Amino acid sequence: MEKLKKYVSVKDEDQFYHQGAVELLVFNFLLILTILTIWLFKNHRFRFLHETGGAMLYGLVMGLIIRYVTKASDVESGTVYECEKLKSGPSTLLINITNQVYEYQYKREISHHNVNGHQGNAMLQKMTFDPSIFFNILLPPIIFHAGYSLKKRHFFRNLGSILTYAFLGTAISCIVIGLIMYGFVKAMVHTGQLKQWEFHFTDCLFFGSLMSATDPVTVLAIFHELHVDTDLYTLLFGESVLNDAVAIVLTYSISIYSPKENPNAFDAAAFFQSVGNFLGIFAGSFAMGSSYAVVTALISFMHLTKFTKLCEFPMLETGLFFLLSWSAFLSAEAAGLTGIVAVLFCGVTQAHYTYNNLSPDSKMRTKQLFEFMNFLAENVIFCYMGLALFTFQNHIFNPLFICGAFVAVFLARACNIYPLSFLLNLGRKQKIPRNFQHMMMFSGLRGAIAFALAIRDTDSQPKQMMFTTALLIVFFTVWVFGGGTTPMLTWLQIRVGVDPDEDLKAEAASQSASNLDKNTTKAESAWLFRIWYGFDHKYLKPILTHTGPPLTTTLPEWCNPVARLLTSPTAYGDQLKDGDTDYIINNDELTENYESSAHTAVPARDRTGSTQATGKEDIQEGDLGLGGYKLQLQPQMNSPA
Amino acid sequence: MEKLKKYVSVKDEDQFYHQGAVELLVFNFLLILTILTIWLFKNHRFRFLHETGGAMLYGLVMGLIIRYVTKASDVESGTVYECEKLKSGPSTLLINITNQVYEYQYKREISHHNVNGHQGNAMLQKMTFDPSIFFNILLPPIIFHAGYSLKKRHFFRNLGSILTYAFLGTAISCIVIGLIMYGFVKAMVHTGQLKQWEFHFTDCLFFGSLMSATDPVTVLAIFHELHVDTDLYTLLFGESVLNDAVAIVLTYSISIYSPKENPNAFDAAAFFQSVGNFLGIFAGSFAMGSSYAVVTALISFMHLTKFTKLCEFPMLETGLFFLLSWSAFLSAEAAGLTGIVAVLFCGVTQAHYTYNNLSPDSKMRTKQLFEFMNFLAENVIFCYMGLALFTFQNHIFNPLFICGAFVAVFLARACNIYPLSFLLNLGRKQKIPRNFQHMMMFSGLRGAIAFALAIRDTDSQPKQMMFTTALLIVFFTVWVFGGGTTPMLTWLQIRVGVDPDEDLKAEAASQSASNLDKNTTKAESAWLFRIWYGFDHKYLKPILTHTGPPLTTTLPEWCNPVARLLTSPTAYGDQLKDGDTDYIINNDELTENYESSAHTAVPARDRTGSTQATGKEDIQEGDLGLGGYKLQLQPQMNSPA
Repeated sequence: MEKLKKYVSVKDEDQFYHQGAVELLVFNFLLILTILTIWLFKNHRFRFLHETGGAMLYGLVMGLIIRYVTKASDVESGTVYECEKLKSGPSTLLINITNQVYEYQYKREISHHNVNGHQGNAMLQKMTFDPSIFFNILLPPIIFHAGYSLKKRHFFRNLGSILTYAFLGTAISCIVIGLIMYGFVKAMVHTGQLKQWEFHFTDCLFFGSLMSATDPVTVLAIFHELHVDTDLYTLLFGESVLNDAVAIVLTYSISIYSPKENPNAFDAAAFFQSVGNFLGIFAGSFAMGSSYAVVTALISFMHLTKFTKLCEFPMLETGLFFLLSWSAFLSAEAAGLTGIVAVLFCGVTQAHYTYNNLSPDSKMRTKQLFEFMNFLAENVIFCYMGLALFTFQNHIFNPLFICGAFVAVFLARACNIYPLSFLLNLGRKQKIPRNFQHMMMFSGLRGAIAFALAIRDTDSQPKQMMFTTALLIVFFTVWVFGGGTTPMLTWLQIRVGVDPDEDLKAEAASQSASNLDKNTTKAESAWLFRIWYGFDHKYLKPILTHTGPPLTTTLPEWCNPVARLLTSPTAYGDQLKDGDTDYIINNDELTENYESSAHTAVPARDRTGSTQATGKEDIQEGDLGLGGYKLQLQPQMNSPA
Repeated sequence: MEKLKKYVSVKDEDQFYHQGAVELLVFNFLLILTILTIWLFKNHRFRFLHETGGAMLYGLVMGLIIRYVTKASDVESGTVYECEKLKSGPSTLLINITNQVYEYQYKREISHHNVNGHQGNAMLQKMTFDPSIFFNILLPPIIFHAGYSLKKRHFFRNLGSILTYAFLGTAISCIVIGLIMYGFVKAMVHTGQLKQWEFHFTDCLFFGSLMSATDPVTVLAIFHELHVDTDLYTLLFGESVLNDAVAIVLTYSISIYSPKENPNAFDAAAFFQSVGNFLGIFAGSFAMGSSYAVVTALISFMHLTKFTKLCEFPMLETGLFFLLSWSAFLSAEAAGLTGIVAVLFCGVTQAHYTYNNLSPDSKMRTKQLFEFMNFLAENVIFCYMGLALFTFQNHIFNPLFICGAFVAVFLARACNIYPLSFLLNLGRKQKIPRNFQHMMMFSGLRGAIAFALAIRDTDSQPKQMMFTTALLIVFFTVWVFGGGTTPMLTWLQIRVGVDPDEDLKAEAASQSASNLDKNTTKAESAWLFRIWYGFDHKYLKPILTHTGPPLTTTLPEWCNPVARLLTSPTAYGDQLKDGDTDYIINNDELTENYESSAHTAVPARDRTGSTQATGKEDIQEGDLGLGGYKLQLQPQMNSPA
């Protein structure tokens, strides 16, 4: 391209380093500001701005300042040099400049039309993260934490519904957005805003898949704070967690879909290959993640029994837990799978098995550690989103595309929630009521995952347009929908003030009082899940944790020697206390809190009738296998007081 | 240089990314292995190998494997390209290669003689960290944790001695090593192994300063485990913490010492400039670190009183604490000071003031968080040291230099400890006994800081020789001296099994029983320290924390309105309980533990006589201001039982 000889001032290492410090300081400053603001808001019970929304706002302001206040100091650095000797880009480039050798490291490929964006403000360039940081550093702790803090009992009860929303719903959402956007793209081509060859249907589908990742972190935080109905919370949380995994793998599968001939025509072979890719990557990542968690469970289990108390060294225990969970991510990435999906299922499995084996100290340490990492990573991402609106240099604001995307996103959410809820209600004994459906529709916020997927590739113009649009949708949904959650809850008359753990406590108490056996536990769940549950309860739990019945009672007679070897000595004593009732309390409460109250067996405060009824009604069988747990809409109807 | 046209295979981003995952996986694997081994060792009370030694050993083995088992796959990448158009290296280089623009990022300058080292094994290159990672990511949490976990009461009592060892001792050590090494270098020049112009006296001093950073982490871990005498522990720990700061700033000052004419001649101007640099950087970093901590203390203090309970949101509190402490590091770096020194004093100040304002939950969270980060960072560094012996490509093993360095390091340690202890003993009422001196001499291990300082600059051949030598000294001291700690303790008849907190507990109990006022607290300390202590106790503590007497009693009458405004309401109630007695318990014990036992006032188990005597004997004044705390050598002589 252009051959320009310009003198660029040499940058010594010190200067490089100090600039890195300044950038990080900017982020630190924004986060500190966010924390102080949020603390002020929480203080005044002001719920219209969540910390993520605040971080985004401050990021926006800072981006504005950096954009328009700092000077374009480094204008010369956008020149392209010619190197005839190279045939392709090596990973490390050694260049001899005025008899001094400099080492340069490969960063990325740049499209010719983006080269100009590199001219200009050095500060803007410095404030731009490498997109891979999102996928390798910031997202894993967020996703792991989500998996690790799934409330298991409620989650598994609604598993059918959650899986339906997550898989079928995301696919529907992706296709609907893709189709609508394709219509808009056609219109744009018609009006001459876009050239036909720039935007294929697969690009529309790609946009659809990345916009299908919902991230209702704001809504969930308010739900948690207001103690909204546990089943609504679980449905929404479970959907958003799994849906991220689905959207990530879907986006990847679509991006590698490459029909051989006409890119607009349907190529069955390529399509099925993509479907195969999707299934393979998803299953592989699932297997990778859960197997690391099983290894951790086995080690922590072994530690506690046969050898010595690893709980005497909670630091080692926590370190092991952290490193093995991280290894799940890295192994999946190294194997060409999706690390984030692996880390999600690793988190779920760790919570289900390993958590039971940890010492009380490590339980708290791991929970707090991941909570803290989640908090920081989430706020950094949202902060960065705010910044990116002004610091990202290749925005393409196309009004028609943006309008189309807004329409598409809301229609797609509607096509996801309402039809699927209708179908699910056919099978569910406890229907998902209208107001829950509206709330789920309303909670279709887009956040960190959609952003990270969009920023991953901003090289071509369609991708830049998508990125800009995705960013605006994130802003709109987080601020408007996030801020409107509390009024919406009131308007939809969704009950709040439910102690999310009370059902479980009361139930655990009634279970320990009525000397539960596996049959009652079984009867609560639907048939599909019950098969796995039985297997888990009888074999996996006793092998991997200290809970559940001893293997000697669940395995056939002739397996007794093996069973005795594998069974934890504590299992015999504890067999009345079913391990599946333990769960991870989400925020700041200690598990001891729960355990003590569960064992003192005071079953009910003002809702005795309702929860005890739950267990009994569930014994009736024959539902679709899509979870069975009675939803209480109007608590005053059930509560005898 | 060489103009070579070679075809280098293009590396797509995926491949880059996956390689990063593999490297991290290697480290994860090594750390997991280390944790499992250490757990096994702890289980069998085997104390000859500390986790850092284990990490180093595994790193060594892995380095050996990578070095000799993996293939030299990427031979072509060591070629140097000529770029006539550039006059110097820009931060970002855009290169047009076969009509595709690639972005390259500036990494570093390379000496011509090191270019060959870049040929060869890609895996070796990948396993090589950027040295700035040590200073920016791995060391800060280690140093902060050290500062945050200083046991304050014991530390301040021995402050004079600790400062003497840290400042004077490090300077002596640096000069002695420098002089001895200069002699060896002269000898090497004489035998023709080295050219005169390659190695100046300043290089020798540079080596002396970096080798003066002691890191007795292994020894301290064993001391902690065996509950060795608290004063020995404090002297050694305090010395090693402060000495790191001194050595880092000293190394920097020496590296920028540039006499105008003959580099071997003494240039008074340049020398005083270096001294000025040292003092300026040290004082600046100190001010930066402690002012951030004071800000944190003020925010957390304000939170607790005037506004609302920030302790209701321990996540926000912990986040704020973490971010502000990190900002201290970044600000110091951005201002051209030494971030590590700033973060050290930030940690000390946070522990002294902010810690008292935190909610119990946040106290534990911050302590565990930094403990965890310290644990990971320390093991990663030691692991990397093991790896570096085989994966670093520019080792220069010079037997004479290595022998000289070993001699110099041990002689310098002796010149540091014995003369200074003699001088200190002239002033100390409680002498530092011979066996403590021998133990301190023995504990002159070199570790993470020396390594990080040495690897920072490995560009010239003298620096490479120094790096190789430093690495060998670290290996030797960590394994041999670290492993020999337990036998040495026995041999030197140093008492073990002392509850490190018992002195404090008993004292706190006797204090709360005898209704202590500021006079007794004052009388315990030496005059130099007492001035500051009085000021701290009367003004700083009441302003920044909830402890100490209310300001209304300490400030003059006419300040009463201001004083009342600034005083925490809880200070009036709590004034009998002196805040200076609280401290951070080092490992895994909760503060509640201490507080409850301190208040139940059970002063002594088997050592009543000794500790109660301490307070009284200290009332005699006239010592050199170098701390006064009676050392108990043979507990059986004091214990009445």
